[in-house]
Amino acid sequence: MKLFSFWRSLATFRVRIALELKGIEPEVVDVDLFKGHQREAEYRAVNPQMLLPALIDGDGPPLFESLAIIEYLDETRPEPPLLPKEPRARARVRALAQIVACDSHPLVVPRVRGYLERELGLDEATRTRWIHHWIGESLKALETHLAGSRDTGRYCQGNAITIADICLVSHTVGAELFKYDTAPFPTVRRIVDACMQNQAFVRAHPLAQPGAPKSV
Amino acid sequence: MKLFSFWRSLATFRVRIALELKGIEPEVVDVDLFKGHQREAEYRAVNPQMLLPALIDGDGPPLFESLAIIEYLDETRPEPPLLPKEPRARARVRALAQIVACDSHPLVVPRVRGYLERELGLDEATRTRWIHHWIGESLKALETHLAGSRDTGRYCQGNAITIADICLVSHTVGAELFKYDTAPFPTVRRIVDACMQNQAFVRAHPLAQPGAPKSV
Repeated sequence: MKLFSFWRSLATFRVRIALELKGIEPEVVDVDLFKGHQREAEYRAVNPQMLLPALIDGDGPPLFESLAIIEYLDETRPEPPLLPKEPRARARVRALAQIVACDSHPLVVPRVRGYLERELGLDEATRTRWIHHWIGESLKALETHLAGSRDTGRYCQGNAITIADICLVSHTVGAELFKYDTAPFPTVRRIVDACMQNQAFVRAHPLAQPGAPKSV
Repeated sequence: MKLFSFWRSLATFRVRIALELKGIEPEVVDVDLFKGHQREAEYRAVNPQMLLPALIDGDGPPLFESLAIIEYLDETRPEPPLLPKEPRARARVRALAQIVACDSHPLVVPRVRGYLERELGLDEATRTRWIHHWIGESLKALETHLAGSRDTGRYCQGNAITIADICLVSHTVGAELFKYDTAPFPTVRRIVDACMQNQAFVRAHPLAQPGAPKSV
């Protein structure tokens, strides 16, 4: 397997966690988002959308979109499962993951931050306020869902790690990278702390990747 | 089943299509996004995130996030299936759906348009440019994927309707509501036209819902 990755990409972080949990060690191709390498012809041939991550499994065409890739990994390498068996529980896990992957993260990715800066001419303070606003909105939603449901256990859904935990960790690590304080979200923090006991999450962490700074 | 819906909500449109395809006629509860009814206590108790759609099936807690709801419907009412059987094909369908539901639609929803207007003080022309930019980016990505793959058939994936088609139709109808010209995307248009031959898509259309204007 070949993973197109960049240390700072939170969507790729999710796929890295899933690969680690499944015990898969892919060949890693670095695509430096800060240097615009995602817009070069070589990567455009892999993913015309010029977004990370992409994953190539065997000779198949590249897989794209982090949640689609993770479900593919779960369907083709079922152990350990990243979704529960029961349909309502699966729906809850997917919905929690989508609060991150649909409602929040797309608003703070590089291309959107670039538009705010270059097309709208917003200064850094205003851009940071934008980022913090959307991170905060989704953390509020996640905390409310997680604190208010009996389905929540050691992890988002009971006591097994699922796609919801993967997204929750990517989101809170992203919040930290953007200097957003996650302390007001105790259930989120408790679950993230539990996940970080698992070395798969530690090894997949943005700051543990090649090219990453020691801290931010 | 009880669907919390509003004619103009494109995410709810997706769930309405899935319900129509499955032959399910839910009780519909109108939540007027234009009047802010999603922020009232009654709906907050259903979905603390104050977003549409939400679906209640039996006595279970409300389901939320359109893609999670559609996969739930597909798992609990398998006929007709909305995902192919083969993992790579499933991944492609989900990824195409996520180009809409993750990369594009979240950037043009009411709460984001509201932030652009009220917090950033952007005028209508600038807000429209924002909306058109992100709709255009994703239509380009979708056209490239669909035109360039032998997996594309009458529909996004072969000759059966999937979640990708549901998202593609919601996206192009959204583009039309925002007066964005989809003519430069012939493969997208061809597939959408094929979908609109199916009465499930016609009946679920925003302008066919109670409270909708005759045209926009």
